[in-house]
Amino acid sequence: MIKVGIVGGTGYTGVELLRLLTQHPEVDVSVITSRSEAGIPVADMYPNLRGHLDLAFSEPDVDVLGACDAVFFATPHGVAHALAAPLLAQGTRVIDLSADFRIKDPQIWAHWYNQAHGAPELLPEAVYGLPEVNRNAIKDARLIAVPGCYPTAVQLGYLPLIRAGLIALDSLIADCKSGVSGAGRGAKVGSLLCEASESMKAYSMNGHRHLPEITQGLQEAAQSSVNLLFMPHLTPMIRGIHASLYATLTPEAQRMTLAELQAVFEQTYAQETFVDVMPLGSAPETRSVRGSNMCRIAVHRPQEGAHVCVLSVIDNLVKGASGQAVQNLNIMFGFAEDAGLKQVALLP
Amino acid sequence: MIKVGIVGGTGYTGVELLRLLTQHPEVDVSVITSRSEAGIPVADMYPNLRGHLDLAFSEPDVDVLGACDAVFFATPHGVAHALAAPLLAQGTRVIDLSADFRIKDPQIWAHWYNQAHGAPELLPEAVYGLPEVNRNAIKDARLIAVPGCYPTAVQLGYLPLIRAGLIALDSLIADCKSGVSGAGRGAKVGSLLCEASESMKAYSMNGHRHLPEITQGLQEAAQSSVNLLFMPHLTPMIRGIHASLYATLTPEAQRMTLAELQAVFEQTYAQETFVDVMPLGSAPETRSVRGSNMCRIAVHRPQEGAHVCVLSVIDNLVKGASGQAVQNLNIMFGFAEDAGLKQVALLP
Amino acid sequence: MIKVGIVGGTGYTGVELLRLLTQHPEVDVSVITSRSEAGIPVADMYPNLRGHLDLAFSEPDVDVLGACDAVFFATPHGVAHALAAPLLAQGTRVIDLSADFRIKDPQIWAHWYNQAHGAPELLPEAVYGLPEVNRNAIKDARLIAVPGCYPTAVQLGYLPLIRAGLIALDSLIADCKSGVSGAGRGAKVGSLLCEASESMKAYSMNGHRHLPEITQGLQEAAQSSVNLLFMPHLTPMIRGIHASLYATLTPEAQRMTLAELQAVFEQTYAQETFVDVMPLGSAPETRSVRGSNMCRIAVHRPQEGAHVCVLSVIDNLVKGASGQAVQNLNIMFGFAEDAGLKQVALLP
Amino acid sequence: MIKVGIVGGTGYTGVELLRLLTQHPEVDVSVITSRSEAGIPVADMYPNLRGHLDLAFSEPDVDVLGACDAVFFATPHGVAHALAAPLLAQGTRVIDLSADFRIKDPQIWAHWYNQAHGAPELLPEAVYGLPEVNRNAIKDARLIAVPGCYPTAVQLGYLPLIRAGLIALDSLIADCKSGVSGAGRGAKVGSLLCEASESMKAYSMNGHRHLPEITQGLQEAAQSSVNLLFMPHLTPMIRGIHASLYATLTPEAQRMTLAELQAVFEQTYAQETFVDVMPLGSAPETRSVRGSNMCRIAVHRPQEGAHVCVLSVIDNLVKGASGQAVQNLNIMFGFAEDAGLKQVALLP
Repeated sequence: MIKVGIVGGTGYTGVELLRLLTQHPEVDVSVITSRSEAGIPVADMYPNLRGHLDLAFSEPDVDVLGACDAVFFATPHGVAHALAAPLLAQGTRVIDLSADFRIKDPQIWAHWYNQAHGAPELLPEAVYGLPEVNRNAIKDARLIAVPGCYPTAVQLGYLPLIRAGLIALDSLIADCKSGVSGAGRGAKVGSLLCEASESMKAYSMNGHRHLPEITQGLQEAAQSSVNLLFMPHLTPMIRGIHASLYATLTPEAQRMTLAELQAVFEQTYAQETFVDVMPLGSAPETRSVRGSNMCRIAVHRPQEGAHVCVLSVIDNLVKGASGQAVQNLNIMFGFAEDAGLKQVALLP
Repeated sequence: MIKVGIVGGTGYTGVELLRLLTQHPEVDVSVITSRSEAGIPVADMYPNLRGHLDLAFSEPDVDVLGACDAVFFATPHGVAHALAAPLLAQGTRVIDLSADFRIKDPQIWAHWYNQAHGAPELLPEAVYGLPEVNRNAIKDARLIAVPGCYPTAVQLGYLPLIRAGLIALDSLIADCKSGVSGAGRGAKVGSLLCEASESMKAYSMNGHRHLPEITQGLQEAAQSSVNLLFMPHLTPMIRGIHASLYATLTPEAQRMTLAELQAVFEQTYAQETFVDVMPLGSAPETRSVRGSNMCRIAVHRPQEGAHVCVLSVIDNLVKGASGQAVQNLNIMFGFAEDAGLKQVALLP
Repeated sequence: MIKVGIVGGTGYTGVELLRLLTQHPEVDVSVITSRSEAGIPVADMYPNLRGHLDLAFSEPDVDVLGACDAVFFATPHGVAHALAAPLLAQGTRVIDLSADFRIKDPQIWAHWYNQAHGAPELLPEAVYGLPEVNRNAIKDARLIAVPGCYPTAVQLGYLPLIRAGLIALDSLIADCKSGVSGAGRGAKVGSLLCEASESMKAYSMNGHRHLPEITQGLQEAAQSSVNLLFMPHLTPMIRGIHASLYATLTPEAQRMTLAELQAVFEQTYAQETFVDVMPLGSAPETRSVRGSNMCRIAVHRPQEGAHVCVLSVIDNLVKGASGQAVQNLNIMFGFAEDAGLKQVALLP
Repeated sequence: MIKVGIVGGTGYTGVELLRLLTQHPEVDVSVITSRSEAGIPVADMYPNLRGHLDLAFSEPDVDVLGACDAVFFATPHGVAHALAAPLLAQGTRVIDLSADFRIKDPQIWAHWYNQAHGAPELLPEAVYGLPEVNRNAIKDARLIAVPGCYPTAVQLGYLPLIRAGLIALDSLIADCKSGVSGAGRGAKVGSLLCEASESMKAYSMNGHRHLPEITQGLQEAAQSSVNLLFMPHLTPMIRGIHASLYATLTPEAQRMTLAELQAVFEQTYAQETFVDVMPLGSAPETRSVRGSNMCRIAVHRPQEGAHVCVLSVIDNLVKGASGQAVQNLNIMFGFAEDAGLKQVALLP
């Protein structure tokens, strides 16, 4: 059993980490910090944990956290910048669910997050924690940047096509739909049931913070420049991301059959536990991954035209955040990659 | 006061017609037919109409219907094919909410609806009832084909760009999200609350019946061939369509400012009562049109790139069906175009 | 046309007043105040009003408000206490949607609202605006206390039984279910979609502020002491109150048939426009009144036992707040009681 | 590992059994029957099971089922009547999730289910599978009648009070709210998203089939006659039952403090893994048990009056059906009672 800590355990990614880690056979959660809730039992805030976790929130303390084998950050951006270095110095591995170490270029980070990067010296060793891309680097990493929710769904959907050179890179369009939990547990008017249910809308039309992260990942895969239009939409449900990913097939790829495109996807993910390429003709539903760490993908070529459309669904709080964080932990510590992550999605 | 009838009043477009027509200052609903519910008071099935309508469903009878000034068809496809001619012969105008007369080419209709067209001789005089395109023809029409829900939202969004020649016509992508009422009141497993709520999925990925209707309309506007990828998604809400419409700007259009694009939209719809071009930067929400006949549109150019994205929202049961049908009635009979259609959307 | 003003127009009862008043044939809305949003067009905050209202929020100003024939207060409690007197002094009638003048005893008010009553001198002339009880007093009133949402549904359900002396008054149990809009538009964690959807819970188990209001009304009807257990529940929907009202029939009443009980309800409300006694055996649905000013009621006697159960539904924002406020206005100014209130409920 | 079969695996209790059993450490699911879906892989119908279960539906076959150690019936009523005896004859234990063996008196069963009882000879040995009441009998049982969803929530809530003799038995009122999954996966209009979401209503006002089951259980606990008014309500959510249970305290019990009442509940369930008595003042939310086998209970005495109100929540598909079935299996086969049932509720 390893000891882990969680910084910022009051939000939705925090409680989701606890749901997963309290069932993990190799992990003991020994500390959860929250300045605002220090002293309050976690199960008072999250009654689903009653009987599963007997721990109270505590003030963040570097020494206490440094006694853990690994610490998760489920914090707003900026927090991990300050605390990662002292923890690493104590030999604690850091798995950051925030955006702090996702973007390799600190200038780009500063532009999108409206503040200077607080720990640029750590960027070279930070590993982008998308196991399907970086598994080997994750094994030896001390500092993991867990991918964002949209970036996970979008990259896993486009990667087979990009690696195989089957699509034009200058006109990708990712039309993405997210449940409201993506906006977090903050008390914002726009996240109220009366505002967000029974309605659909786009947001961040001119640039969402996940855009540079996605572009970075796709460009790395393509070894070339990529032009992506990313349009997120707020969807009236709690959990789930549905990415509808459009691209123009290259002239060569247009001569392929749909079965051949399907085979490209199946081969790409044949060894992956958490990517499920669905049968030809499938429409993956977000509820088919609710509460699970799975990403389900289907590839389509509507009307046998020049465009391909990849449908990719995840649970934003699991494969899009806390589950993927645990998957990284498993890889880092040599556990089975699905340890603590065997949940079947809750359906209905 | 004119007398109107409704054929097939038990579905959602039927009850929505009744909601609107019982408040219409110039209309008296005198007959509503339903074979399966004949004899049952309408308000027993739809208690929201208690106190507003004292009428029972009756067996369809051509003579009774023919005594009306106008008859609405809120029926599955095929029904209006059979009944339109005898009604027209009695001088009754026909406003068909089904797909029977939307497609000009009976071969194309037969291909998409899997049956022979039942009244090809009426197609030449059938008018496609999109008032923003065909207002003059509607005035004198005897037979109206009310547009489908997706086609309304998609065409109104693309038309300003197509008419102005600002976009490439070979790579349009319409990513559309619809509430579940679009699937009707039929008892289908996929429409159950436990199946369709808290989830998101695409459907009809390889070709939805609204595709040829949309293409026909856009080609007529363009006077040229149009290639559209249309991807509908089932969204966990009752009412609303959100169309996210992508296109590549022509090289000339790429030199325009966003304000200039906005002006194109504002000028196109300056005289329209039921199309609202929202201010620059807006994200129209479907709930802003819930229960109203409005279509709200915003135009975006993400990252100042080569693509334009138009966001277009309607209530699928109002501007996407019954409200638009009433708008057609108003135009045909010389009433104020917004008679009976002044409802403010229900928000929250 | 009379001129009306609204103090505190940014909340849900405010926008609902606007939805109703912009369609009212006798009313011109001339001023809407909001300290926080002063200067902002109302339609920027509530896009459903685009095209229906061309007015901006303004700072509250007694002289401007005093130029109105009537002013609605859609404010937190305490605000109307301060502003009612100066407005009345200018001859403006006041229709208060808050709780400020609902409780006749200022000590009881102070106990439940945790502050001293700010205008006890106005209590004697304040009229409790439940038209089905106080219509005559409303006609001549200068100051109306619009009933709360739960109190409206509960009183209308119990009144026929109490007036007829058919139930024991010492053991009433009102199990009530409310949509989330009852909690207002404030940014509270408990009202987030991710907290309140897909879940059900009771709240204010040991005493909700509507309890003394309901008890006062029932006691007035009974001319006797009443003991009520009132248990509100938060229900995952936007609008609607469903009150399930239990009582023990008196020995005499137990000898009545259900049809006789039904007749008591029908006679009580025979002349009422906005109370609909449904047929024997009915289960009123909240959606059957969504967006309308109707209260629908059904009376049951399960298993022919000693208990009666009355089911009473309203839209909390309409008959439970803004619609009832407009109904009061209509009575006060001699308009048709349903002027501006003829909307058919939005179903589905 | 024991071998288990499921008869009628296509409904919601069937897929929920599979979600639980595929994670159960001691169980191998070897057969799932469905006449209508025979031959179809289970994961084609329920994609959440892709990767977890490699089994197709098969025609029901007594010999194949009889080779199992235990067989679950997730069928409409009547099916287990016919199949239980031949399976028991082969030494297979039967765990019936339907209502077939819940009611001890076959005449009462026939009255409520409108058909003759098909296996009255098995009733004497059938054990009502509420572990908190019948654990010892379950250990040795061959035939288990798994309690209904409402009966589980209601009995667990009332039992401590009844056993301790603290309430009057002639006037119990159970106001219960259920998610729509309680109505099953059948394609019924009333279960459509467009009919059941955004609305609340009572149903079966004059007698729900769970009434005799609840009454039987309470009377057994009381060793006396019990009079219960049971009023179920359809709530716009997928999963969850919220029971609000009212009773009049005996004169002696009215002299007890609330803390003393609380102690009665805590002592009753001190040894129970799946009943959680929440702290004084709590409002259990159905989402706090979503996907888990827990029942959470809180006891209140509003206004320190004569009535007690117990709030009891379960997930209708888990503790109210499939989870409780697995709990019975665990007891019957000597496994840890929580084997396969350690899931933390999914929140948010």
